[in-house]
Amino acid sequence: MDLQICFLGTAGAVPTPSRNLSATLLQRGPDQVLVDCGEGTQRQLIREGSGIHDISHVLLTHMHADHYLGLPGLLKTWDLWGRTLPVAVYGPRGLFDFLDVLKRIIGKVHYPLTWHEIRPGEAIVFEDYRWEAISTDHRISSVGYRLVEDPRPGRFDPDRARELGVEPGPDFGRLQRGERVLARDGREVAPDEVMGETRRGRTVVLTGDTRPCQRVVEAARGADVLVHDATFVEDERERARETHHSTAREAATVALEAGVSRLVLTHSSFRYPGKRILAEAQEVFPESWMPSDHDRVIIPLPEKGAARFERISRQQGIKGVSAQES
Amino acid sequence: MDLQICFLGTAGAVPTPSRNLSATLLQRGPDQVLVDCGEGTQRQLIREGSGIHDISHVLLTHMHADHYLGLPGLLKTWDLWGRTLPVAVYGPRGLFDFLDVLKRIIGKVHYPLTWHEIRPGEAIVFEDYRWEAISTDHRISSVGYRLVEDPRPGRFDPDRARELGVEPGPDFGRLQRGERVLARDGREVAPDEVMGETRRGRTVVLTGDTRPCQRVVEAARGADVLVHDATFVEDERERARETHHSTAREAATVALEAGVSRLVLTHSSFRYPGKRILAEAQEVFPESWMPSDHDRVIIPLPEKGAARFERISRQQGIKGVSAQES
Repeated sequence: MDLQICFLGTAGAVPTPSRNLSATLLQRGPDQVLVDCGEGTQRQLIREGSGIHDISHVLLTHMHADHYLGLPGLLKTWDLWGRTLPVAVYGPRGLFDFLDVLKRIIGKVHYPLTWHEIRPGEAIVFEDYRWEAISTDHRISSVGYRLVEDPRPGRFDPDRARELGVEPGPDFGRLQRGERVLARDGREVAPDEVMGETRRGRTVVLTGDTRPCQRVVEAARGADVLVHDATFVEDERERARETHHSTAREAATVALEAGVSRLVLTHSSFRYPGKRILAEAQEVFPESWMPSDHDRVIIPLPEKGAARFERISRQQGIKGVSAQES
Repeated sequence: MDLQICFLGTAGAVPTPSRNLSATLLQRGPDQVLVDCGEGTQRQLIREGSGIHDISHVLLTHMHADHYLGLPGLLKTWDLWGRTLPVAVYGPRGLFDFLDVLKRIIGKVHYPLTWHEIRPGEAIVFEDYRWEAISTDHRISSVGYRLVEDPRPGRFDPDRARELGVEPGPDFGRLQRGERVLARDGREVAPDEVMGETRRGRTVVLTGDTRPCQRVVEAARGADVLVHDATFVEDERERARETHHSTAREAATVALEAGVSRLVLTHSSFRYPGKRILAEAQEVFPESWMPSDHDRVIIPLPEKGAARFERISRQQGIKGVSAQES
């Protein structure tokens, strides 16, 4: 099952010529989930050229304008385009206080639209994975989100099953579904005699805006990818503390302590060159990336290697966007 | 005095990879006035690279989301950047119904921010020009806007003044300010004896979303530039009527009847190629233009020739935007 992260908006609180406001699209097989929806996100999605209609869930990390102001326009555009598929919008405690404002702007839409508050520890459960809300530490009520795939059964060993006297056919299927079967000699064969070790699923964590904190370290333990707030550099550590954001070094330290495989830095202030942010993080955690808008991270199954970073310039090209990096 | 129109957002109700939602910046000397402010306008302004802080007035044509959803983000970004200059926001009857929604999103800003409803016939008066609200015909309460420069005095003829016996010096100034003076022989000399004909100022009309209508024809009579809704082509004339928009041909017919110098087509649906919209208008009114985002129209003083169209590709380049046209 393909799993990709598409960075639609990597700016801090103010956009730049090359960075839109916060939005990240998670694509897992046919499922598309949008995390945050800053102003201009609908246009970033349109530039991606596909999938804009297939987003089923929008997960907001907190109700600061740079993270949600693109939502009314996106919901209205879906309506103009005749969308019929349902959309569920999730946000932290406090989302419902904004519902009158959002509904007033959006007006009536002709598809099922539902709103949900979610608290840390609660989950949105899909068939073989789930999205969990995690605790973060920002100025206002906030959550991060963690995509966690269910463990997958180990590989079935048909030769071993034959050796044990299991008849090829329906019993092979039963063993793979976790059922015991009878061998030719009447002995019972258990699944764990013919199945390899359970294989772990993938985990992706997105913090939204946050101070570095132990709760994020715990939630990100062993994750394949951690996407973390890196608004400031160390020179402005005090400012990061005051505004409840993180420096690049702080984000890298969280990644190191959590033992994640890859760190992605985002939400960086337009005041620093991207190279400076990245260099500061890489001193602590070398496997750090800093995406431009429309860059992607592709996360293969764990047994197939580590996540890889795909720059927009290596892609077919996004319409209306020059490939230059900020 | 320089007068330019910068097209920041030329899309219809839905953005495209190359067209942002509605916004137009009028620049007259040091004055900057923004007409409409669709989602993403702050980023379009940042791409222009200058003047974003100097906008003193935002004039909204109507309260449909594609025309105002960029306003809260722009007002917040100005605040983040430490703006101190006042901002006045104008909109048609109905703006005040949205104030609670807008203020809730914007929160507190640290510069003077005022809100005004304006009705057709009312004006915002600057030193030597004014912005007038004009009647338009859309689904909801709406206005267009007309920039009208005051007539300028004719040219002073110093040789003629000397011939009439006026002493060079303070009396020359008095004549140019419209005062009568005494000549050497005691005869009174009137300004119109030494001043050329009064020179007309420039006029620019922006309709916002509208059906073609006689009130716009009257308001645009003899204008230098008319920026008119051209959402549809003639094949969808019925749809234009239902949704209270105009076809390109209808916009061109208004321009022809009003006797304007140049027509600019905007707000066209993403479903038609720009060339088709433009060709339909030019059949009726050859001096029609269809800008891409960041294109400009430059309007010299009337005695210095007609307005000219400046494509983005001829400019220094706008950061983060490819020059391709849609």
